[in-house]
Amino acid sequence: MRAEIPLARSSLLLNHGPTVLVSSAHQGKTNVMAVAWCMALDYEPPRITAVIEEGSHTRALVEASGELVVNLPTVAQAKQLYAAGRLSGKDVPDKIAKLSLKTSPAKVVGAPLIDGCVGWLECKVVPEARMQEEYDLFILEVVAAWADTALWDGSTFNFTAPEQRTLHHASKGQFFATGEPVRVTKG
Amino acid sequence: MRAEIPLARSSLLLNHGPTVLVSSAHQGKTNVMAVAWCMALDYEPPRITAVIEEGSHTRALVEASGELVVNLPTVAQAKQLYAAGRLSGKDVPDKIAKLSLKTSPAKVVGAPLIDGCVGWLECKVVPEARMQEEYDLFILEVVAAWADTALWDGSTFNFTAPEQRTLHHASKGQFFATGEPVRVTKG
Repeated sequence: MRAEIPLARSSLLLNHGPTVLVSSAHQGKTNVMAVAWCMALDYEPPRITAVIEEGSHTRALVEASGELVVNLPTVAQAKQLYAAGRLSGKDVPDKIAKLSLKTSPAKVVGAPLIDGCVGWLECKVVPEARMQEEYDLFILEVVAAWADTALWDGSTFNFTAPEQRTLHHASKGQFFATGEPVRVTKG
Repeated sequence: MRAEIPLARSSLLLNHGPTVLVSSAHQGKTNVMAVAWCMALDYEPPRITAVIEEGSHTRALVEASGELVVNLPTVAQAKQLYAAGRLSGKDVPDKIAKLSLKTSPAKVVGAPLIDGCVGWLECKVVPEARMQEEYDLFILEVVAAWADTALWDGSTFNFTAPEQRTLHHASKGQFFATGEPVRVTKG
């Protein structure tokens, strides 16, 4: 079940370095894109950063709206995640529909939440024009965050079923599932 | 065996979002720190980005030298990785020795390569003062890169033994090992 989580804990959703789906919307157009280069930046204020390539349809929607959603897809969605990275929203009128992804309205931003994911970060762009232009790098402030409460314990994911695990893109359609927990005790 | 890899492929070492050890050196002082917030930024030029907290000993060494090494530790090194994130180089005269880490000289930079890791990115800081001051965010250009050729196939890691897998920090000493490959075929 999707439940809202505290903003000050929201960056933790990205701590383990998963590959994400970035959804975006502007003036009736929506899109979704795969992003492997996305990471946490701070807890308070809750900030993350993501690389969004120049010339992409997502880039145009994000720059026009100043908003996006970072969604954490699962092994069950690997095929859609890979296709989201290969297809361009410029060539496909409705990429979300093409990929058979269902969505739900976000709370604060116009971009949709992708159903079946296990974490969601609604974000607003912190304008850093030079970083965007020079490095395709976006600084994002999290304005609402959600997690699948069957898996999220407030600090991390407790995965059980293999198909619920998050994904880490390696290269050209090869991903790693998030693996087994390794716990280090103090001392 | 550690072998040098092409710079244009070096960012691939970070694609799957592992937590890394950042080693640094300046005027005879060396240090090592755990960094979960580190990601690829571009292939050509080979660039990565990392968050290095203000006030940390590593931050001082990196700002003074303009260099660092990003090392990819394994499950076998989880305890040292966690300790590297908890201990401050300000309180421990030689944190690398304290953690019983062995090192080898790098090729281009003064910071050492940490032995037993499976990937290494020698980096120089691309000066972006505002990003460093405002977000603790460093833009880094890779100037030499290495991988354990028993595991790296030129595009990604082929892990076999559990203790050789890379790590992803979740929260407070809980890591995930990099998990099973998930391959998506085109179409």
